This record gives sequence, structure tokens and C-alpha cells, in this order.
Amino acid sequence: ISSKLPSVTPSIFSIMSQLAKKHNAIDLSQGFPNFESDTRLKEMAIKAIENGFNQYAPMEGILPLRMRIAEKIAALYDKFYDFDTEITVTNGATEAIYSAITAFVKKDDEVIVFKPAYDTYEPTIKLNGGKPVQIQLKGEDYRVDWSEVASAITSQTKMIIINTPHNPSGTILDKYDMQQLEKTLRCTKIILLSDEVYEHIIFDDKPHESVSSFPALAERAIVCASFGKTFHNTGWKTGYCVAPKELMQEIRKVHQYCVFCINHPLQYAFTEYLKNPEHYRNLGNFYQQKRDLFLDLIQNSKFTFTPSKGTYFQLLGFENITDERDTVFAERLVKEFNIASIPVSVFNIAEKDQKELRFCFAKTDETLEKAAKILCSL
Amino acid sequence: ISSKLPSVTPSIFSIMSQLAKKHNAIDLSQGFPNFESDTRLKEMAIKAIENGFNQYAPMEGILPLRMRIAEKIAALYDKFYDFDTEITVTNGATEAIYSAITAFVKKDDEVIVFKPAYDTYEPTIKLNGGKPVQIQLKGEDYRVDWSEVASAITSQTKMIIINTPHNPSGTILDKYDMQQLEKTLRCTKIILLSDEVYEHIIFDDKPHESVSSFPALAERAIVCASFGKTFHNTGWKTGYCVAPKELMQEIRKVHQYCVFCINHPLQYAFTEYLKNPEHYRNLGNFYQQKRDLFLDLIQNSKFTFTPSKGTYFQLLGFENITDERDTVFAERLVKEFNIASIPVSVFNIAEKDQKELRFCFAKTDETLEKAAKILCSL
Ligand SMILES: CSCCC(=O)C(=O)O
Ligand SMILES: CSCCC(=O)C(=O)O
Repeated sequence: ISSKLPSVTPSIFSIMSQLAKKHNAIDLSQGFPNFESDTRLKEMAIKAIENGFNQYAPMEGILPLRMRIAEKIAALYDKFYDFDTEITVTNGATEAIYSAITAFVKKDDEVIVFKPAYDTYEPTIKLNGGKPVQIQLKGEDYRVDWSEVASAITSQTKMIIINTPHNPSGTILDKYDMQQLEKTLRCTKIILLSDEVYEHIIFDDKPHESVSSFPALAERAIVCASFGKTFHNTGWKTGYCVAPKELMQEIRKVHQYCVFCINHPLQYAFTEYLKNPEHYRNLGNFYQQKRDLFLDLIQNSKFTFTPSKGTYFQLLGFENITDERDTVFAERLVKEFNIASIPVSVFNIAEKDQKELRFCFAKTDETLEKAAKILCSL
Repeated sequence: ISSKLPSVTPSIFSIMSQLAKKHNAIDLSQGFPNFESDTRLKEMAIKAIENGFNQYAPMEGILPLRMRIAEKIAALYDKFYDFDTEITVTNGATEAIYSAITAFVKKDDEVIVFKPAYDTYEPTIKLNGGKPVQIQLKGEDYRVDWSEVASAITSQTKMIIINTPHNPSGTILDKYDMQQLEKTLRCTKIILLSDEVYEHIIFDDKPHESVSSFPALAERAIVCASFGKTFHNTGWKTGYCVAPKELMQEIRKVHQYCVFCINHPLQYAFTEYLKNPEHYRNLGNFYQQKRDLFLDLIQNSKFTFTPSKGTYFQLLGFENITDERDTVFAERLVKEFNIASIPVSVFNIAEKDQKELRFCFAKTDETLEKAAKILCSL
């Protein structure tokens, strides 16, 4: 058997979650909350199961959910997507990203990705015969050097993938970045894939700059989003993507053959729940308190950090503690100190020896306190 | 935008379901039951949601479900799959089929498919740059001509896809077929993809010949199955595939990047429910009664038929009624007579002008009676 993805090893998220369980460790590795979503949301799911929404959903997602999504985007980003032709509900944002890349990237197409990058982008590009073109984010703040982006563009560039708020660094793209991106893509046919799964988790009163709110970007963009990240139920595997009709038409061809549709009853739960914008409007504050608590508690530890600006992740530099590689140190942390994190190099092929670990702070205050105690003891 | 699948149009299942709704028609088109699954199964799902199984499931599916699947296959087909490395839970059988094809089929690889064929096989092959090699099933009984298969094999043949019980014809492969298949594949490296989503829906006391129970086939085979078809909840989108470790390793690489994992709470429901084999053992009898009722009721209609041997589909020949094409007649049936079916040519690129429609009899007796009344009036 010849492998199409010979270099792929089991996902770091699987490995770390398993190691955490085995060592009964505090698990700040994979990005999910260790608390439950709103009981009302669960009740809505239960009602949908009881009320018989248990056969195939429409391929593109149920109509009322697509309508709610269109309303939400219109209200937040002042952009009107047609719910019939421009919105598709997917098996989590992962499937949205997969279907978007697979719909467009062909053999020898180049795709610009910023490093560190979420672990699915590159293998998906390669599975389609494309070539990832890596641009390293710069400085403690993980900024984009837009002149570098401009020089990376060739006649083969099919797509560019951005991610804001950014996993794992917690950095965000601001209005200036969006203007630079607009300028960089003007006069090209490059498709923009914008991973905005942490759109509602942004701190210090900064706005989320969605690609949807920049007309010159939106017209060439696929925007991916996640209900799991927003409503604290990553295991319901419900996300969506939006894109102009001509792009969405191609994405749906992949979605249709890859999964046909996703689970039906949970779509009804999200539909009901989205009616009240309060359910996502305070998410930034909610997680900001967790970030602040966590950083406060590790203030006097030997770890160094720039506070996360968004997402529910915090990078911690460990150069003052050890000169081990991040993968080695992460493994030792879980085995000897019973705390699980993600070594940032797994997101990061460009600079293998970055001395940082990613910690997920979507955890109860009690868990964060226990974790901080361990981190301060190092 | 250049399309990777230029000839793909919206799924016939979507079109027919929508037309059926619009015309308030009896919907015997898309393959799903119009009755509910067991209340106990729903209660198990509800309990899983209440009990907090709402974050990411493991990539390969939850361990207890994979253990149950291994037990079931061992009991039914006397084949022992390792639940750690040889079983993966997928977003319905559709995703299992997709991931299996995508893991192995490369540019210019040939894949043998029997016509009529489930609508996802060919586009998925093409999306990967492969070439479907079509072999038409023969006669009223839709049999395989194995000598034709032998002559279709070339050095480029990467995979062969079989489907038993067969959608849409309701035919089945018997022991003789399996022996022929074994002989045909011997001394080749061809991967066998076996779509067995209707494994428990087989009539007249015939056994289901699973590829899993033929060692010389199983060692090169990926077998795909569906809980939605078996437990009457197609909208829960839970299926699985099994394969030898070396094959499964590659399939999981696609699954991991395409969806990462599927919804978590519903996996627990199936785990509990699978404990009692009665829950699938009588499925054949259950649907046989429906087939018999339906065929009895349309006995005196102008439609011709060979009784379905498995699946919950019945093909009906309409040559005595009209010489319209199947697509035209199907559209007229839903619009003028308010009954929706699937024109068999959508499964069937080889012989476009086959005068048959597919009717799904996974419906309440009342629905089947109403449908038969209309069909008898034609
Ligand atoms: C789909 S598993 C990974 C979850 C996640 O988004 C992360 O931990 O970065
Ligand atoms: C995934 S939609 C198609 C359902 C089905 O299996 C069929 O109708 O053939």
C-alpha cells in the first residue's frame, strides 16, 4: 500500500488526550471546555430527538438554522449571505475547512499558510496534490509581514488561509491587516479561506474583524465557523461555512459526497438557541475572566508570555525552565507533573525549535487553579 | 473558478425530497423510514446528552462502541477485527466510503464499479483523479458477469467496489459470487471496498454474505456499514468501516482531516443499544413484511417487478405504462400523482434508458397502502 500522506502521524490532540487520561493529568491540551453547555441548549436537543427529527437532514443543513446564521452574520458583520445558496452546515469547522480546500486545490496549486497553523490545513492541501507555502508569523505577537506575503504569491497561488483569532498564538488580525490583505489580493484570483472559529472569543474590547465585513475580501472568501467552540459542545460536531454562491456551489459538491449531511436533531437545538444573541455576545468576557485568572495565577512562575488576545489558548514560553524541545518537555509535563499541554511545534513546521507550549484555558476556575499551582512549581 | 466536478448536479435525493415536500406527495424516494426508531434508543441518546458526553469524541470513535462493533462482526461473520486499529466510526456510511476511496485512489487509478451504483462512488473516485470502470449488472436479477470483471482488470486497477444487498436493485451477492470475486482478485493487489449498509435487511431466509467472512477477501477489504439504516435513524449520521490495520491506518488519515471525529452523545446510544442482538436480528423479517405488503398491493398494477431480495428498495418497471424516460416519468409522478420515487438512471450511467423507478418501502403500512393505490391507478 502506498500512502497518500506518508508523513502523517496520529493527531497530537489524540495523543495528548490519551496521555492525559492515562496519567490522570489535568488536561489543558485539546481545545474543548471541561464544563457543560447551557442546560437549555441540551433540552432543545432532547426535544428535537423526541419530536422526531431523526432522519436525514437536507444536504446543505436545515433551512431555519441557515436563516439564523444569515441573520447573525448580517447583524454582526453587516454582510448578507443568501441562506439558500451561500451557507452550508458542516460536521464541525474541520469539515468546512476540508471541503473548502478540497473543492478548489488541485495538483501543484500553491496555498499560502501562516505558521504556526492549525494542524489540518497542510495535510488537506497535500491530499489534494497542492503545495503549502509557509509564512512564519513574526515576533512575540505573531504578526503577519505583508510584504513577505506579497512576494510569496506566484501564478500558482490558488488560495490563502488566514485564522483570526489565531490558534495557537491567540493573536488577532486587525483592520490594518485586513486592508493589507485586501491590497495583496487585489488583481489576483486567489481564494481566501478564513478560519474564524473563535470569532466570539476576543478580549480587551477589541472587535473581531471578520472577512465577511470587508466586501472586497468577502467576494472571494470562504468563512468557516463553529458552534462547538461558541456554545461549549465540541462533541456535537456542528459548524458551517459561508461563501459567495459560485464558490459554495463547488464546496457543496465535496460536502455532498464526503458526508451528504450532518446529524439532524442537534441542528434544531442550535437553531433555537441562536435566536438569543446573548448566547454568544458575552463569550469574550466569559473567557477573558478565565484568561486573566490563569495569567494572574502563573504571574510568578518561570514561564514567559504575551497575554492571548483571542481564542481559549495561551502560549507559555519555557526557556527559563529547560532547554528541552517542546515535544519532549510536553511529554515530561504530562508524565511527571500530570499536566497536559500542546507543544507548539506541531503547528509549526517552519521553526521546529520554538520553546513554547499551548495551554487551553476553557476550563473551570478550579481546574485552572490546580494547573497554575503545578506550573508555578516548575 | 474551475470546477473539479463540473458535471455534478444537485443530488437526486435532495431534488426528489424537495419536490415531494412541495407537492405534498407520498415520499418513497430517498432511503429513510417515515417511522421512528425505538424509544429506548432515543432515551439512550438523551441520557448521553444529559450525562455530559458533549465534547470531542476520540477521532476513531468511542472505545465501547468499537468493542460492540467488533463483537457483532465476530458473532455474525466469524471474523475478529481489532477494535483499536481496525474499526473507525464515521459520519454515516457515506463518509466511510468517501474516506476509503480518498485514502487509496490516485490520479489515473482505475476503480471497477457495478452499474447501477450508489451515487457517491463515481464522483468520489473522480475527485481523486481516478477513473471509474463501469460494469453493467445483467438481467432482471442484476447479476454480475464475473468474466467481464476479469477482463476489466488492468495494471491500473486500484480498487473494486461491491454493494450487497444492492441499492437500488435489491439483488444480493451469494456464496458463488464471493468465490468468483475471490478468484478474480487472487494474485492482484486490488483493494476491495464492500458497501454493506443493508447487511441486516435481507429476505426469504437468505444469509448475508459479508466480505468479512471470507478470509481471502477480508484481508484486502474495507467493509462499510450504517447504524442509520439498521436502527431507523438515518439523521443521526453514524456509520463505521472495518479493514485490516494497514488499510485502516490510511483511511484514518483522511477521516482525521476531513471530520476529525463525529458527534459524541449518539455514539453512546448505539453502544448501549447494540448490546442486544435482537435489535438487528429481526430486521430482515420486519422489512420482508413491508416488501410483501407492497408487492401484494401492486400485484394487479401495470408495473412489472422482480421481488427485492434485500435493502428497503423495490424497482418497478414501467414499460407497460409509458415510454417516457425514467427521469421524466418520475417527475410527472410526483407532480401529477403526488408520489415520489427515484429514477434508476441516476445510479446508472451505462444504460441511460432503463425503464425502472426505485421505490423505498421503509414506510408505515398506511403509507404503503396509499402509495399502492396511486400506483394501481396508473
Ligand atoms: C478537532 S481536535 C482539535 C481541537 C482544537 O481546535 C485544538 O485543540 O486546537
Ligand atoms: C445519503 S441520501 C441517500 C440515501 C440512500 O441511501 C438512498 O436513497 O439510496
